[in-house]
Amino acid sequence: MSNPFFKNHGPFNVSEVLKFLEIEKDFLDSNLHIKDIKDLNTSSKYDITFFHSKKYKNVAKKTKASFCITNESLKNELPSNCIPLIVKNVLVSVSKLTAKFYPDSVDDGFDKTLMNITDTKFKDEVDHGKNVLIGENVSIGSGCSIGHNTIIEKNVLIGNNCFIGSNTIIRNTFIKNEVKILDNCVIGKHGFGFFPIKNKNLRYPHIGMVLIEDNCEIGCGSTIDRGSMSNTVIGKNTYLDNQIHIAHNVMVGENSIIAGQVGIAGSSIIGSNVRIGGQAGISGHLNIGNNVEIGGGSGVIRDIPDNTKVMGYPAKKIREFLRNN
Amino acid sequence: MSNPFFKNHGPFNVSEVLKFLEIEKDFLDSNLHIKDIKDLNTSSKYDITFFHSKKYKNVAKKTKASFCITNESLKNELPSNCIPLIVKNVLVSVSKLTAKFYPDSVDDGFDKTLMNITDTKFKDEVDHGKNVLIGENVSIGSGCSIGHNTIIEKNVLIGNNCFIGSNTIIRNTFIKNEVKILDNCVIGKHGFGFFPIKNKNLRYPHIGMVLIEDNCEIGCGSTIDRGSMSNTVIGKNTYLDNQIHIAHNVMVGENSIIAGQVGIAGSSIIGSNVRIGGQAGISGHLNIGNNVEIGGGSGVIRDIPDNTKVMGYPAKKIREFLRNN
Amino acid sequence: MSNPFFKNHGPFNVSEVLKFLEIEKDFLDSNLHIKDIKDLNTSSKYDITFFHSKKYKNVAKKTKASFCITNESLKNELPSNCIPLIVKNVLVSVSKLTAKFYPDSVDDGFDKTLMNITDTKFKDEVDHGKNVLIGENVSIGSGCSIGHNTIIEKNVLIGNNCFIGSNTIIRNTFIKNEVKILDNCVIGKHGFGFFPIKNKNLRYPHIGMVLIEDNCEIGCGSTIDRGSMSNTVIGKNTYLDNQIHIAHNVMVGENSIIAGQVGIAGSSIIGSNVRIGGQAGISGHLNIGNNVEIGGGSGVIRDIPDNTKVMGYPAKKIREFLRNN
Repeated sequence: MSNPFFKNHGPFNVSEVLKFLEIEKDFLDSNLHIKDIKDLNTSSKYDITFFHSKKYKNVAKKTKASFCITNESLKNELPSNCIPLIVKNVLVSVSKLTAKFYPDSVDDGFDKTLMNITDTKFKDEVDHGKNVLIGENVSIGSGCSIGHNTIIEKNVLIGNNCFIGSNTIIRNTFIKNEVKILDNCVIGKHGFGFFPIKNKNLRYPHIGMVLIEDNCEIGCGSTIDRGSMSNTVIGKNTYLDNQIHIAHNVMVGENSIIAGQVGIAGSSIIGSNVRIGGQAGISGHLNIGNNVEIGGGSGVIRDIPDNTKVMGYPAKKIREFLRNN
Repeated sequence: MSNPFFKNHGPFNVSEVLKFLEIEKDFLDSNLHIKDIKDLNTSSKYDITFFHSKKYKNVAKKTKASFCITNESLKNELPSNCIPLIVKNVLVSVSKLTAKFYPDSVDDGFDKTLMNITDTKFKDEVDHGKNVLIGENVSIGSGCSIGHNTIIEKNVLIGNNCFIGSNTIIRNTFIKNEVKILDNCVIGKHGFGFFPIKNKNLRYPHIGMVLIEDNCEIGCGSTIDRGSMSNTVIGKNTYLDNQIHIAHNVMVGENSIIAGQVGIAGSSIIGSNVRIGGQAGISGHLNIGNNVEIGGGSGVIRDIPDNTKVMGYPAKKIREFLRNN
Repeated sequence: MSNPFFKNHGPFNVSEVLKFLEIEKDFLDSNLHIKDIKDLNTSSKYDITFFHSKKYKNVAKKTKASFCITNESLKNELPSNCIPLIVKNVLVSVSKLTAKFYPDSVDDGFDKTLMNITDTKFKDEVDHGKNVLIGENVSIGSGCSIGHNTIIEKNVLIGNNCFIGSNTIIRNTFIKNEVKILDNCVIGKHGFGFFPIKNKNLRYPHIGMVLIEDNCEIGCGSTIDRGSMSNTVIGKNTYLDNQIHIAHNVMVGENSIIAGQVGIAGSSIIGSNVRIGGQAGISGHLNIGNNVEIGGGSGVIRDIPDNTKVMGYPAKKIREFLRNN
């Protein structure tokens, strides 16, 4: 699937890309063009991908990309269809090249395409409050309502029978049916992802989106950041209370319940039928199974298997937590 | 007292209610009408109430309600004036019936009665910023000021000399005198209360309000949800810092001080002269006494008696916490 | 430096000040005027200062102030150029007197000087969204953009190439160059500082500002309160994620990274190159060194020396934390 929201400024001639990445390599056919930048899994022929950790060895072996940004120690894992491009810091090079393909995705300037809803085709189709602003590439289904002062920036698809509250800002987000997003939320801004560099950090692009499935509810004052290469996803019928923060690339399953002030750090995967108590925090890059219960205030720093109840900081099995306390 | 904010769509004929609750019972006088739905304590003759836990046995014995939604094992505790109506799941039935009496209280659609303050009688009476919106059934005392882009939805009573900041949303709230509510707050939305049902949760109605007593201050970015059957209350001269979340039915006493990012879960009762440090969390349905001090970052999961200092997660006496650490 | 934002209503005649503080003292030259109220360190001749704790003995000995609000047990530490004024409660008297000098700094009423940006000189100079409001004493450099519904109240200086998001409120703040402040923030309101008094607390004035150095980024929904006597400072190239709360007088160094939902209580000093994980909390009046790493969810209640990694609640060395758990 091509990126639904960010415009691909490619293809780029391969020699242009090599020069851009400061790679000296001249055996390549200079008429070749690189179409897109994607992860190992979703790349096709003429795409460029990246491979920066042994953890992804098995996926790398099967990539269909024609080029891969990687380093000396990993290059031999790639299949013969994929030409390795060796750089010093894989992630920094990927970041720079992604920004070349998708320059709009680096920073979130305010959307200049916005118009007052009363000047758009939604004027009569959508039940709307005062001072509602709508950007380009927005679609809104039937039976929706949008509260006062809310800003639907460009690249937002909203299904049927959705309710968006007041003072909320949404961008780069796909909202399915019967979803409620309450007041004062910010949904779809870029994540807190960058390379720390003295005096001036380097932001990396976020070309993913936020995907909110059917029947979800998102509480007041919550923030959900969009993904970097993949998407941030809230599964069907999952309810979030107020003041929750969901970082980039997080995926939450179906029928889960997340109480107030919970924070989930980047790239963690949460299962279905999960219950998370108020103020609990979940570190990044974790796997939380299905039917897990996490007590309020817990700090989760390790994976949790299915059907487990945990509590504490660091979170442990709830019986152990209560016995120790 | 009749509900000040939500319109009672009753009375309903008793046979209509029985049919609605899917109860087969035909010995009742079909001319009887049920006036209102209330808790065991506040019900009067011709009201319907509910009784779902032995914990409330003593209150149940004295209820003045004419009907009570309950189950087989509890029905014999009711007095002779009160006819038991037996259902499978008391709380789900109560929720559905409350929604029948008070349909406006289930969801918080944006308020369509809003007008720009400059088109209302408050234009000259209230010192106001730009783009202030005011709904129906709003009263505002003398000496008040309201900042820019703030939305006072329907059902808000504001006393004298109050200050409301900018970008704040208030609904279903009774604010007494000399109260300050700062910027970006959301006060009075329904609580995070619903029955988890696979694929599509069932919201229960919130017919309570938020009551903020004299001289309180509510910090920026805070959320205070209104009560379900009872009210959410902030006592006199209690100050809340920024980014605090107060859930539905919580009652906080007088002269208390609550620091930034604290969260108090549903139905907990906090005493007077209480001090709560930053980021502390208090679980639901707890009783926190008077003159209690709760250290910053604490996670309170049990009741706390008067005059106690606690800290830790789970919170324990502060001496014990410091000795162990 | 005179206060850049709050107007000094002084000088006041010394006898007027004595009467105001309810001090009986008649040997003073009644023609003397007091120019300003400052801390021990920054006071000059004809200023009044205060001295309330032995901790500041060494600074007190060298103050250049002509008057000092203090108590019996400390008065003899002052130099001969400085006349001690003895009161019951030093901080309450200082608070009252500061309010006399700077009455605008006590409460943050909404700014009545605001105009729509399209009616100001910034109309063409600043790339702006819809419904942007700008107050008095605001300057904005070149290359800046400001999103929709954002309110820049009086006393805000913005450098070059800054980006301010939508629905954000800023007042009493000095923002240098290349700074990004994202959506729904509140920057520069008074801190959560007051004297608890039964039935009606006494606010103390906040005459400091917020200073945000070059290249910083402030995430969505964050709040940064201005200082009371000193400033709240975010150092160069420091990045804050979403929903962070920085209390009054906090100073954060350069090149630091603060993840989502972190809270830093009043007057704590954070070094440079510090990394703070999500939801961590730092108590007030602490010193956190350079190159410190604080794990997500930690509760820091003691000073941390340079080059230390800590985690836990209370935070301890990370090895110890992991060994114990």
